[in-house]
Amino acid sequence: MNETVPTISDINAAHERIKGLIHKTPVLTSATINNILHAEIFFKCENFQKVGAFKFRGASNAVLSLSNEDAHKGVATHSSGNHAAALSLAARIRGIKAYIVMPENAPEVKKKAVAGYGGEIIFCKPTLEARETTLETVVQQTGAVFIHPYNNFQIISGQGTAAKELLEERPDLDIVMAPVGGGGLLSGTSIATKGMSKHAKVIGAEPKGADDAYRSFKSGTIIPMVNPQTIADGLRTSLGTLTFVVIRDKVDDIVTVSEQSIVDAMRLVWERMKIIIEPSSAVPLAALLEKELDVAGKRVGIILSGGNVELSNLPF
Amino acid sequence: MNETVPTISDINAAHERIKGLIHKTPVLTSATINNILHAEIFFKCENFQKVGAFKFRGASNAVLSLSNEDAHKGVATHSSGNHAAALSLAARIRGIKAYIVMPENAPEVKKKAVAGYGGEIIFCKPTLEARETTLETVVQQTGAVFIHPYNNFQIISGQGTAAKELLEERPDLDIVMAPVGGGGLLSGTSIATKGMSKHAKVIGAEPKGADDAYRSFKSGTIIPMVNPQTIADGLRTSLGTLTFVVIRDKVDDIVTVSEQSIVDAMRLVWERMKIIIEPSSAVPLAALLEKELDVAGKRVGIILSGGNVELSNLPF
Repeated sequence: MNETVPTISDINAAHERIKGLIHKTPVLTSATINNILHAEIFFKCENFQKVGAFKFRGASNAVLSLSNEDAHKGVATHSSGNHAAALSLAARIRGIKAYIVMPENAPEVKKKAVAGYGGEIIFCKPTLEARETTLETVVQQTGAVFIHPYNNFQIISGQGTAAKELLEERPDLDIVMAPVGGGGLLSGTSIATKGMSKHAKVIGAEPKGADDAYRSFKSGTIIPMVNPQTIADGLRTSLGTLTFVVIRDKVDDIVTVSEQSIVDAMRLVWERMKIIIEPSSAVPLAALLEKELDVAGKRVGIILSGGNVELSNLPF
Repeated sequence: MNETVPTISDINAAHERIKGLIHKTPVLTSATINNILHAEIFFKCENFQKVGAFKFRGASNAVLSLSNEDAHKGVATHSSGNHAAALSLAARIRGIKAYIVMPENAPEVKKKAVAGYGGEIIFCKPTLEARETTLETVVQQTGAVFIHPYNNFQIISGQGTAAKELLEERPDLDIVMAPVGGGGLLSGTSIATKGMSKHAKVIGAEPKGADDAYRSFKSGTIIPMVNPQTIADGLRTSLGTLTFVVIRDKVDDIVTVSEQSIVDAMRLVWERMKIIIEPSSAVPLAALLEKELDVAGKRVGIILSGGNVELSNLPF
């Protein structure tokens, strides 16, 4: 297993490894959104990825990277949702078990997804402490390998394959944007982008109500989030030690957005592009609509991270 | 202008005429839906068409078919929405005016769309009579050419280009399905399918609460709908004299579905395919979920007619 910070070679290797399992998702554009922003925006649609989120890339890479010896007792994780579904499906494809520690209050649609992909759910109280102690017990009892949702180099390399595909299709991008929660997607995106483009900038986008990555990036030291408040449920987690190092070294900037902008951006994509994205996916576009970043005349790639939304509980 | 029942040649000519204006929409599949139905379903995504519906195909063909002399005073229509938006955009592209007679209670999202595409809206009471007298007045005052939403051969030929593209991509389909309201899409679909495939069957799908096409097809005589009751707002209209003749001659069967099935099918597509379709689009899939039609082992093309939904007023 690779235990040093991944490079573009690791992302290429991950892509080879998972190519047969993942969907090569489309890159879509919207004339309306381009007109609003006076820019060309290229949306990499990971909402169409298996399990409905980019997380399947990292989970597949992590599961396929395990030796037979490590793999046979299964894998385990804690996750509020998409990583859990992704790890369950990747494990099922390899024919091993996935133990998923999940907060009781996780969205119904995500619980159903995990169960549907064959993951074994162990519920815990919705606190970081309960999550960690429950996971520890599961790992001790089963011997499963813990696959962290983002603070894991195989996960980071897998997530980087989305930006790799985007840049293969649009090598002329000026900016690549991704939302940032735990930092797996943004760190993988930054490694892929800096490894493939001489001039493209990498910008993370984060809700103001969960802005630990912004504050950590600006201060140069990890400042974990306490009590995050955002509709973007995929972005409530804090940076990990590994993702922080990559983001600090390779990301050009992190911008933050209001809750209203996230809802507005999400609605704009639903109404005009006719595709379903979850709030986390809308955060980079929200930053552009808020003019947090001037992109006039530029070519901007945005990774739409996922499309798993509880339809009975929409913000509009 | 062609005033005889269109053939595949007319659809081919329409396609040549409008090719530069329309989107060639993608054909998507869903492993989950295929598993549920034990069949291969190919969704032709007209929800991604310009103005968010197949209606742009027919409207473009009708507008581009006009002589300069006929065109210069503009076009006019009555429509509950998608045809109105489509005609407005097609007219704007040709540089002529579009006068749109629209019921006061049309969905807000559709009113905004028409205005956004430059159509001039004339509101009327939500009755067939008010619609027709208002339209007559508009045509008399402006000299605009009336473009009927479906009972018009240029419209029918244009709508048929969606099935043409679908069959070019999947010539091996066993069945092609389309929803039926006024019958423009279904009649165009049947001409294209029968002209391109020796064996493919064409099946229309209709809400039970607006089943005039079903009753007209079965009885062999037009039975207009009185007081249609369905969430599928695009399908509340009754067959026209021209669409009826084509459907009677070329469609293999029409099936009907419950309101609950429409909502379930719509939700299934949203949740699993991550694309937004309007209730009308969900009607053919609803028929398959209801087992109105046994498609096990078959290859079925379904035209997803549009994606214009009032997001503030969803049925789930």
